[in-house]
Amino acid sequence: MTETTPMRGVLSPVITPFTAELAPDAERLIAQCRWLLSKNVGLAVFGTNSEANSLSVDEKLMLLERLVEGGVDPKRMMPGTGCCALSDSVTLTKRAVELGCGGALMLPPFYYKGVSDDGLFRNFAEIIERVGDDRLRVYLYHIPPVSQVPITLGLIDRLLKAFPGIVAGVKDSSGDWNNTKAMLDAFPGFGVFAGNELILLDNMRHGGVGCISATANVNPGPIHELYDGWQTPEADRMQAEVNEIRKFVQKFPMIPSLKRIVAHYSGDAGWAKLRPPLMELTQDQATELLDGLDERGFAMPGLPRLQKGAAD
Amino acid sequence: MTETTPMRGVLSPVITPFTAELAPDAERLIAQCRWLLSKNVGLAVFGTNSEANSLSVDEKLMLLERLVEGGVDPKRMMPGTGCCALSDSVTLTKRAVELGCGGALMLPPFYYKGVSDDGLFRNFAEIIERVGDDRLRVYLYHIPPVSQVPITLGLIDRLLKAFPGIVAGVKDSSGDWNNTKAMLDAFPGFGVFAGNELILLDNMRHGGVGCISATANVNPGPIHELYDGWQTPEADRMQAEVNEIRKFVQKFPMIPSLKRIVAHYSGDAGWAKLRPPLMELTQDQATELLDGLDERGFAMPGLPRLQKGAAD
Repeated sequence: MTETTPMRGVLSPVITPFTAELAPDAERLIAQCRWLLSKNVGLAVFGTNSEANSLSVDEKLMLLERLVEGGVDPKRMMPGTGCCALSDSVTLTKRAVELGCGGALMLPPFYYKGVSDDGLFRNFAEIIERVGDDRLRVYLYHIPPVSQVPITLGLIDRLLKAFPGIVAGVKDSSGDWNNTKAMLDAFPGFGVFAGNELILLDNMRHGGVGCISATANVNPGPIHELYDGWQTPEADRMQAEVNEIRKFVQKFPMIPSLKRIVAHYSGDAGWAKLRPPLMELTQDQATELLDGLDERGFAMPGLPRLQKGAAD
Repeated sequence: MTETTPMRGVLSPVITPFTAELAPDAERLIAQCRWLLSKNVGLAVFGTNSEANSLSVDEKLMLLERLVEGGVDPKRMMPGTGCCALSDSVTLTKRAVELGCGGALMLPPFYYKGVSDDGLFRNFAEIIERVGDDRLRVYLYHIPPVSQVPITLGLIDRLLKAFPGIVAGVKDSSGDWNNTKAMLDAFPGFGVFAGNELILLDNMRHGGVGCISATANVNPGPIHELYDGWQTPEADRMQAEVNEIRKFVQKFPMIPSLKRIVAHYSGDAGWAKLRPPLMELTQDQATELLDGLDERGFAMPGLPRLQKGAAD
């Protein structure tokens, strides 16, 4: 995929590796990001599936800087920079822009529930104004099942009018195609990413720009092929194939499963670690997951194979 | 109130003042904390009503240090130190213990929903072990209407058995007296704080240790008198009196109302500022609130009166 502006295609909310002491592991993350890019998948680092909110701002700044120093193209990165605290959102977003990131994926502040669209508008407006950089591209992150604080159509409309060009798109992780479609219908030209690949074809056929999907961490090649070939006669077959893997994997707790899969296929057991409150799969769950993937002919070609436990 | 160990009595989740630029204002906070202490009310700084999650870790560390430097007794402080990120919780809790704080009030990590008690246990256990200081006193913060992540009786039981003496109590902001009573019944000697003063008398009569209440920010004297006199014949009358103010104030959005009340009675309009996503009261709301308090003979005796807008 040729890099384009604005961002398009398949992005992965890259899972975050931890050392045995539960510190974020920049080396492993850089290797994983390079592998994802080699599969034409962009890098939504610090997403929900990255355990982003289990990382401090300083840890995120360190990882972002290490990635760029490590030669990972910032234009292919859309780090999550939306925090509960305005000051944190400004710090992270400003640094992401300085480093040349293609976009910033912003959760609403998610501690207080039932907040007004006026308050959310003011949050995003303050961030945009305090960052004060025309290169900023904001992607709003709508994930009400987790954040419990929605990004409504009314809020998008206000932000688009106030900050045209800066407010560039949305990731819709509502799990509701009707909501994604409503966004596509309401805002032609807005960069609407589906929240998973199950509706990637639907999204593209209605004017969307791609998807940002948990399972792009483990199945990037086929999901990108679907994106790339959405207008071909093979599209529906490819959609069915990626769906089979997605629907199987999502029977298990998502983040522990992604990490367990990478641990297994890389031979690097340390990848399975999570920060609390998340927990690793049980051995029974892991066996059922990995056996099921094996039965489905799943593979992760080219995944860096570290010596088992080497980085531990 | 004589200071006791473990912490008891009435505490206020102290509202956090902001400058015109929305930076936290240590000077105003120190003055407010001194006034609360003069009313025998302890300092649960960085609570929900403090907009704690709208502050960065660095901002909280700065405020905590400024408070202690400013002569505010750390033994009367129970700062909120539970964050989504383990690393943040450890940083804040460790500093609170180093500074001599009487306790640390800990939210569970609240981004992921539906997490297991195993994962929450591991979160608190990691924090306690990484802080590694016998002076630590953990107060668990149960506020499911906001956090959406509960502190169950089963989790408390496990933590009490694993960390006796360290896990010292709970703030129950479930709004459900039956839950508070279940905690009191299950764990005799555990430091159970009611989440507001409406059930302060019930809590004391069943073995509780006090309350941590939003409205202690504005009505500290009468709430402390109720705590202090809970065994006197005047107790029910005093409960009815504090209830009248509480029930009136809670008809309005709580945090903006507390700030508006302090702004009004201090003559310092800057106190009304909030960080987004929270918004100030409308003028109509403010008029109704302040008129209603006036009708009820409400006062804030001894509140520091800054020159209007002086700290702005």
